Amino acid sequence: MLHSLIASVPPVNADAQAACRAHWDQLTKPQGSLAQLEDLAATLAAIAGTPVPTPGPTAVLVFAGDHGVAAEGVSAYPQAVTVQMLLNIRAGGAGVNVLSRQAGASLSVVDVGSLGGPEGEVAELPPLGPLGVSLQIHRIKAGTGNIAVGPAMTPAEAMAAILTGARIGREAAGPSKPSALPLVAIGELGIANTTVAAALAAALTGLQPADLVGPGTGVDLEGRGRKVAAVQRALLVNRPQADDAVDCLAKVGGLEFGAMAGAILGAASARAAVVLDGFSALVAGLLAVRLCPAVKQYLIAGTQSPEPGQAPVLAALDLKPLLRLGLRLGEASGAALALPIIESTLAIGREMATFSSAGVSNRDDA
Amino acid sequence: MLHSLIASVPPVNADAQAACRAHWDQLTKPQGSLAQLEDLAATLAAIAGTPVPTPGPTAVLVFAGDHGVAAEGVSAYPQAVTVQMLLNIRAGGAGVNVLSRQAGASLSVVDVGSLGGPEGEVAELPPLGPLGVSLQIHRIKAGTGNIAVGPAMTPAEAMAAILTGARIGREAAGPSKPSALPLVAIGELGIANTTVAAALAAALTGLQPADLVGPGTGVDLEGRGRKVAAVQRALLVNRPQADDAVDCLAKVGGLEFGAMAGAILGAASARAAVVLDGFSALVAGLLAVRLCPAVKQYLIAGTQSPEPGQAPVLAALDLKPLLRLGLRLGEASGAALALPIIESTLAIGREMATFSSAGVSNRDDA
Repeated sequence: MLHSLIASVPPVNADAQAACRAHWDQLTKPQGSLAQLEDLAATLAAIAGTPVPTPGPTAVLVFAGDHGVAAEGVSAYPQAVTVQMLLNIRAGGAGVNVLSRQAGASLSVVDVGSLGGPEGEVAELPPLGPLGVSLQIHRIKAGTGNIAVGPAMTPAEAMAAILTGARIGREAAGPSKPSALPLVAIGELGIANTTVAAALAAALTGLQPADLVGPGTGVDLEGRGRKVAAVQRALLVNRPQADDAVDCLAKVGGLEFGAMAGAILGAASARAAVVLDGFSALVAGLLAVRLCPAVKQYLIAGTQSPEPGQAPVLAALDLKPLLRLGLRLGEASGAALALPIIESTLAIGREMATFSSAGVSNRDDA
Repeated sequence: MLHSLIASVPPVNADAQAACRAHWDQLTKPQGSLAQLEDLAATLAAIAGTPVPTPGPTAVLVFAGDHGVAAEGVSAYPQAVTVQMLLNIRAGGAGVNVLSRQAGASLSVVDVGSLGGPEGEVAELPPLGPLGVSLQIHRIKAGTGNIAVGPAMTPAEAMAAILTGARIGREAAGPSKPSALPLVAIGELGIANTTVAAALAAALTGLQPADLVGPGTGVDLEGRGRKVAAVQRALLVNRPQADDAVDCLAKVGGLEFGAMAGAILGAASARAAVVLDGFSALVAGLLAVRLCPAVKQYLIAGTQSPEPGQAPVLAALDLKPLLRLGLRLGEASGAALALPIIESTLAIGREMATFSSAGVSNRDDA
């Protein structure tokens, strides 16, 4: 089933990309003056398969999981916060609720592995209050094992996380009209997630843990030392195989990381542009690209956080973030905040006049 | 009249700013994790005079003028493009039209000094087509003098530009409800404007022209050399007095620079937050601060362009830009693109749950 998921991601359309660049060069602006927006437009056109796509459904997906490595004292917050934040999103009061509403995007929150209930639970809990969202539960496991002493999960659980995410990612991209481009923003929550992101990034890239571990939600220097040590032990104890992405995920990853990678693949299979939140989502993006190189062309980096591991992962994915505001909240909030920039880019392609239609002299007309 | 304009800018409210920071520290997120948005929220609260402002009217203002220094071969585009772009905005097809619509902002375009008609013309021309906007004409002068050989304008014309802008800035901030915060985005267009921006910045700061001159809309290395030479000659010929902002504006500035500075003062006098576009608008911000230091607390940098002069001016104003996408289109487009980030920041303050309301553990509860 993983094989058919991977095969379902179509190549992007280079002709549409080139036609998009030619169209943008005719818009009433100095060529290249919209800089990163012009590159973004080309990326979106390649995904949509048309030079001037219209916006399709816009969805924000938040995957949640708990991490056994929290026992190593790697977070400033108690592990109970994972479930509390799930309830906060369900009630409509988290940052990502506000930012999804502002962006006019639907919001789905999916518990693939919290400690909030039994392994195997599948349910959909209704919103708490008028601004809330329903909470989807597909709890593959009630929290992962502590990667500093053993594997996070079994290979079968890793595969289940990927396939669960893939189904949700595909659904979020929705049934789309031709030439309409769905946008799927992806993020996660889970206490100790930046430790797991660093471990997974180290396993996939061979980079040193000390270059990938940061303060996360705000541990001090001592806490950061515990994070580095936990990641080093995770790599030593588990020996993840860099060329086997599922092995890396199972040994030193997390359930929501597998689900995010799956959602990226599922969304790309439905020709959606995938907007990644900060460090954890980018590492999931790297995992997805290792599973399926064709997915790389579907990725957009919404935001760059101060986590030191983000720069090398962005470089590995050849991505430039849309926002550099120092955001480190997670829960897809940075990706959601970037959505209006993407919508505006689509609008520019559709609505701006060309030099000839507006009767404006181009630089060669001097 | 300049004196009463300057006196009309009220000090911002430090108590509201402190109360805003205290409120944001109680929102369900790690303290400080929204980084630059938290600083932005504090700035907005200080301006509005309330910890959790609601959004007031949102307006984008584009001021246009022509520059005699275009004769020095400092632009890649013919001077006729200034008027052509005014017509393009009037017809609704420019980048700023699209981005203002996306942001739900009103758009006003004001000709304070183009070559499109006689000096002294005052008129309001209706939109061309359903998506267009009316073009306001308050043409103080039909283009400035060439600053490389003499002054741009008389001191009286400089004053008229400031006062015209002030009236428009005050009107754009609109009649506002208590606790509602108007947003006024400010930018400009005019062939040769980055040369004038560099000259005015050099006059106000004492920095060297070579450190302030960049490629603008895309001149080559030789063209950049001509720009540096033109700015150097402008300073030598005119000898602007650094401690006299009106003198600097009259000698080496431009009509739309005066109007922008006036609009900044006028908007601030109506307690609006002022969102500055790229290099030219930032230099106008510096001019406004030199006229009235209290206005500094009302400024927000929408965007950072690649123009080398922008970094020192941002530093002089103590501002961090919201967007760093390499945009160099001008015409307030970068400021307009930043508006949704500001709206989202206001929404976060109003709508996010607090730790106590949501029952989420804070870091001290571990």
